[in-house]
Amino acid sequence: MVSRRHGRGLEELRALTIETGVLRHAEGSALISMGDTRVLCAASVEPGVPRWLRGSGSGWVTAEYGMLPRATHTRGRREAREGRQSGRSQEIQRLIGRSLRAALDLDRLGEQTITVDCDVIQADGGTRCAAVTGGWVALALAVDWLDRGGAIAATPLTTQVAAISVGLSGGMALLDLDYDEDSSAETDFNVVQLGTGKLVEVQGTAERAPFSRGDLDRVVAVASAGIAELFEAQREAVGAERAARR
Amino acid sequence: MVSRRHGRGLEELRALTIETGVLRHAEGSALISMGDTRVLCAASVEPGVPRWLRGSGSGWVTAEYGMLPRATHTRGRREAREGRQSGRSQEIQRLIGRSLRAALDLDRLGEQTITVDCDVIQADGGTRCAAVTGGWVALALAVDWLDRGGAIAATPLTTQVAAISVGLSGGMALLDLDYDEDSSAETDFNVVQLGTGKLVEVQGTAERAPFSRGDLDRVVAVASAGIAELFEAQREAVGAERAARR
Amino acid sequence: MVSRRHGRGLEELRALTIETGVLRHAEGSALISMGDTRVLCAASVEPGVPRWLRGSGSGWVTAEYGMLPRATHTRGRREAREGRQSGRSQEIQRLIGRSLRAALDLDRLGEQTITVDCDVIQADGGTRCAAVTGGWVALALAVDWLDRGGAIAATPLTTQVAAISVGLSGGMALLDLDYDEDSSAETDFNVVQLGTGKLVEVQGTAERAPFSRGDLDRVVAVASAGIAELFEAQREAVGAERAARR
Amino acid sequence: MVSRRHGRGLEELRALTIETGVLRHAEGSALISMGDTRVLCAASVEPGVPRWLRGSGSGWVTAEYGMLPRATHTRGRREAREGRQSGRSQEIQRLIGRSLRAALDLDRLGEQTITVDCDVIQADGGTRCAAVTGGWVALALAVDWLDRGGAIAATPLTTQVAAISVGLSGGMALLDLDYDEDSSAETDFNVVQLGTGKLVEVQGTAERAPFSRGDLDRVVAVASAGIAELFEAQREAVGAERAARR
Amino acid sequence: MVSRRHGRGLEELRALTIETGVLRHAEGSALISMGDTRVLCAASVEPGVPRWLRGSGSGWVTAEYGMLPRATHTRGRREAREGRQSGRSQEIQRLIGRSLRAALDLDRLGEQTITVDCDVIQADGGTRCAAVTGGWVALALAVDWLDRGGAIAATPLTTQVAAISVGLSGGMALLDLDYDEDSSAETDFNVVQLGTGKLVEVQGTAERAPFSRGDLDRVVAVASAGIAELFEAQREAVGAERAARR
Amino acid sequence: MVSRRHGRGLEELRALTIETGVLRHAEGSALISMGDTRVLCAASVEPGVPRWLRGSGSGWVTAEYGMLPRATHTRGRREAREGRQSGRSQEIQRLIGRSLRAALDLDRLGEQTITVDCDVIQADGGTRCAAVTGGWVALALAVDWLDRGGAIAATPLTTQVAAISVGLSGGMALLDLDYDEDSSAETDFNVVQLGTGKLVEVQGTAERAPFSRGDLDRVVAVASAGIAELFEAQREAVGAERAARR
Repeated sequence: MVSRRHGRGLEELRALTIETGVLRHAEGSALISMGDTRVLCAASVEPGVPRWLRGSGSGWVTAEYGMLPRATHTRGRREAREGRQSGRSQEIQRLIGRSLRAALDLDRLGEQTITVDCDVIQADGGTRCAAVTGGWVALALAVDWLDRGGAIAATPLTTQVAAISVGLSGGMALLDLDYDEDSSAETDFNVVQLGTGKLVEVQGTAERAPFSRGDLDRVVAVASAGIAELFEAQREAVGAERAARR
Repeated sequence: MVSRRHGRGLEELRALTIETGVLRHAEGSALISMGDTRVLCAASVEPGVPRWLRGSGSGWVTAEYGMLPRATHTRGRREAREGRQSGRSQEIQRLIGRSLRAALDLDRLGEQTITVDCDVIQADGGTRCAAVTGGWVALALAVDWLDRGGAIAATPLTTQVAAISVGLSGGMALLDLDYDEDSSAETDFNVVQLGTGKLVEVQGTAERAPFSRGDLDRVVAVASAGIAELFEAQREAVGAERAARR
Repeated sequence: MVSRRHGRGLEELRALTIETGVLRHAEGSALISMGDTRVLCAASVEPGVPRWLRGSGSGWVTAEYGMLPRATHTRGRREAREGRQSGRSQEIQRLIGRSLRAALDLDRLGEQTITVDCDVIQADGGTRCAAVTGGWVALALAVDWLDRGGAIAATPLTTQVAAISVGLSGGMALLDLDYDEDSSAETDFNVVQLGTGKLVEVQGTAERAPFSRGDLDRVVAVASAGIAELFEAQREAVGAERAARR
Repeated sequence: MVSRRHGRGLEELRALTIETGVLRHAEGSALISMGDTRVLCAASVEPGVPRWLRGSGSGWVTAEYGMLPRATHTRGRREAREGRQSGRSQEIQRLIGRSLRAALDLDRLGEQTITVDCDVIQADGGTRCAAVTGGWVALALAVDWLDRGGAIAATPLTTQVAAISVGLSGGMALLDLDYDEDSSAETDFNVVQLGTGKLVEVQGTAERAPFSRGDLDRVVAVASAGIAELFEAQREAVGAERAARR
Repeated sequence: MVSRRHGRGLEELRALTIETGVLRHAEGSALISMGDTRVLCAASVEPGVPRWLRGSGSGWVTAEYGMLPRATHTRGRREAREGRQSGRSQEIQRLIGRSLRAALDLDRLGEQTITVDCDVIQADGGTRCAAVTGGWVALALAVDWLDRGGAIAATPLTTQVAAISVGLSGGMALLDLDYDEDSSAETDFNVVQLGTGKLVEVQGTAERAPFSRGDLDRVVAVASAGIAELFEAQREAVGAERAARR
Repeated sequence: MVSRRHGRGLEELRALTIETGVLRHAEGSALISMGDTRVLCAASVEPGVPRWLRGSGSGWVTAEYGMLPRATHTRGRREAREGRQSGRSQEIQRLIGRSLRAALDLDRLGEQTITVDCDVIQADGGTRCAAVTGGWVALALAVDWLDRGGAIAATPLTTQVAAISVGLSGGMALLDLDYDEDSSAETDFNVVQLGTGKLVEVQGTAERAPFSRGDLDRVVAVASAGIAELFEAQREAVGAERAARR
């Protein structure tokens, strides 16, 4: 029988908070905490789009991901000093970007780019999922900013998007793994889902033990239930910020 | 109704060949062709293991992935000249390495490293899947080489591993996408499975339209059927090489 | 007559807070806010010293400095992605490291290294000075951690160190410049002082108008008065953390 | 008395084959085998020329050279991963580019660029020479492609170009060195010659023993005889491809 | 009592020579020797300005700094080979650039850029100061070149600028430190001053012992006296070159 | 009829000087001027050899080549700032290293490395040849230094080595090309010869017009005559330095 820190249930999220308006300069910002994992998300609006979209009328949303050197148990190397982003950082920021774009109609954004920077202040597992969930809040607030400024006719946001990890351990599915659970799980899944209930990314990796099609099905069900709670927290965070601005 | 090139059925693989012993110097090598996609796989055995495994008695298997500049429709830039591997290349070679390791007992390998280089000679979709499937053949032949040399007591290979892509297009699941199909598919899945029937990686990415849990289930079923054929081809290739050596 | 934001006096610091224990994993940590400038300081203790100190019995203290891309008014490029730290970042982290080392007896530290990461969360002028001031707090708490663990016989800390900027504008000396003031100042000084009253760094740069020896003298006097307040805040921050641990 | 592998004569080429049309996407391609050395040559036509030729009406031909990590006896490092092309790779690709340009009238090409990628699949000495010889075939086929498309008025090809190595060993000149011969030769020459009989590059390097003017003269004579055979093979390869297209 | 090499007084400069016209291609050049320190300064005039100045009508002056590998006691690594400029080199070239710009009215230069390359041929302490002092001579001669060519209406040069180091050692201020003195000094200052007597940069760094405000005052006085001699030598050098051109 | 600057004959060297002892710190140094080309050569002795020679008892000699940004007519980019040495620089320094090693018995050097830095102060054609010729003088003086220090039993120097360029222009062979001649020559040769009369490197490159075997023969004869004069100058330079030390 698996026992989790703080008496958490198998399908229970860690303590979750999303604080908005944490950066004075960013068009949208959110600090998301999932247990001890903390990710600072900043959405920046800039004119123009990448070369391959110029003249198309379409906008662009992209993400960058980083981790402060001492976000982790032992200090990691500063990527700027290494002279390159790790393959892991690049893989994660590509996932975040794809996930956020699935929740927008880029045509309605017009030829401008929103970059969502997700910087991990403290890491305790699940940083890429927290980045997607918090990144959507920052993105939604940046869209509000555009709307207030009259820069868009109709909101490009079409739905919410959030992400959660699930692990298989001793035959059981555990929702929202912390670092120790992630390290000992036999298999690790990341599930990204839209507010419509549809999936945009499912990534399952057998670190220690391969998994069956039945496992996969069960994992996605557990993830969906958790993501419903994340959607609720996102709506509260965005609503609070909007109320504060009125 | 979807129509595929060469009258291929929805759940039919492209023409598949695996040629072995194609490189004189490598301990194991295979040239895999899936339709017009061709990947050259070379397994190199070297003494020693990465720092974090030294003294553990365990071996290591890793992969590197590259694409010749003119493997593609329009010439791509040479990564060596760019001064870095793209994030895409790094992401793919991490996937190949994880997949191959799932088919071995690294402890039985002892403190040596097998590097599987997967270089795309010609690209027409599905290069990462072809690299996993062909890479396993090169790996198995390198293990044979070790065995012939008396360098291992028992084979570290525990099973086969192969991979295939599946796309969702107009509500239908298409096996083994070529480049044009991949570009127009609404969702793209890569499935990596062991000879035991268990899964080691499932990656689904909604490029255009999100997918349901039912879609995911169907996709994995279609992939499994295709992978069974890949396993057959792998066994034939390894068997032919072994026969030739006797 | 110069008028400052929030009715601040010419020789008055911005609102200053130093929050400690903000990072769960770091041996010492502090989040310093000076007006809208916010710098997260994390001190990490690691065994060993750089090559040139091995066998000397002496320890080492070094600093790294970074700025989150959206710390600034307009988004800056991520240095990890650029493939290198800017000359400015390197110059600043060398200054922070030298300043912190002036407050320690490295021999008493023994052959271990303390790295102080200073990451700018939000920038509004004076980030390097805030990094020195907050960095000392993180360093002092890491020394406390070593002391609690019995890893040092006597504290290597010999005094406090803090830093402040002063600008010359229209003939007047302004303490603790914010970004707008810094941009319009004729000359910009950074002064680093020890708890003993002695100076460890004085850097004066005439951006628009050169300065006289009398100006320099006046600037250092104004800086010293401001630094006395920083020392008070450092002592309170460290004292509060120590009280909380008892 | 020197004895060569497979009973080869001193002035005899290794087994030579040039296979054309090996890459579906490239405008011209050739796989050249000289003994165990195999180089894949792909010619890509792209609009435009480098900056310094813009507006001149002249075209450009350039080459890039690479070696797959396991082309060699022991695995080499992947240059893309090293973050840079080696000095050797750069030196070789500059030689190939110069040699190919000597066989063209760039003015007749118009403002387009042909890049010839030469990737060594298997290395057993003489890779740069094989790259020049095979590269000319790929180039000639790309010119045919331009001609069929009506993109050029008159062929820019003015002659053939091919290259061969010669070594001095124990006072004797050996044609077309393999890797073992190259490693033990006292001096190593690479000779590049045009179909007109004129030379475009002669590079002689005394690795172990310096050479006389008489040696140099004899070496060039031996090389010229070998290159005549290479010209014949080039013409056959191009002719076969042209015949297949009719 | 401090004793200096060659019986030099505490406030005495080392043997100083400034040779002009040493590079045939540069618009202005100077080889400055201060004791055994030798820096070659070359000013290059190029049309255009950096992006942020385009259309402003203003010119730009910038500096680059390098050190030949064997300028120093033991051979240093070649920065071009390391793949990057050190933080120290970047910090120094930023200082040189700022100092030179303080002596010009960039508006009068018009939209052209003068780059002053300062390359250390031999190092014996004080290279950055020698680079500022010699760099001004090269700059002044490049301005003369522009003037002779009629490319400027009025000289953009508004004054001279020169720099000198001062060290504190055993309570005494030593002017113009050589390498050994610099290594043993307790504190190291670099002072940059204009021909008007005003200061443009003061940098004091306590390497071993912190310093008082009185020390700082004294150091600047000693530096000013030394800089007066540098100004004299600059005027002589420029005058000699002008005389030679007449 | 070709007419050369300063009325120089076809087979006449430019004005040649070799100044020794120009760098205080280097074990051997020489500043070579050939016409307006000036190269500073510094030989540095360091203990140890590259990894592949450790334990062999053999020493190593290597070269590095660089060009100051304003050595050329128009300012070139600083390689340290570009983040890499150009392919040209690497190709040249490999040639210099090979040439110098041909004049030594590395076994007699013992396990130490001599690095010869060749930095072009001013460029007017023929820099690689000047670097070989001047580099040998620096190397010979470093060997003298080793000998004076008793670090070697017998001199490892076995002969002299020098290099010269020859161009073909309008059917005539021109010795020692300057930049303008090099730019207009149809073919460019670099010849490196030992004091014994034997050749160590011959590199001929047809920039505009291919050349015949007869041309090659004639070029080498012209080069040999010029190199004889270079040997004389080398002996004088080394002899003068030795005399000065007695």
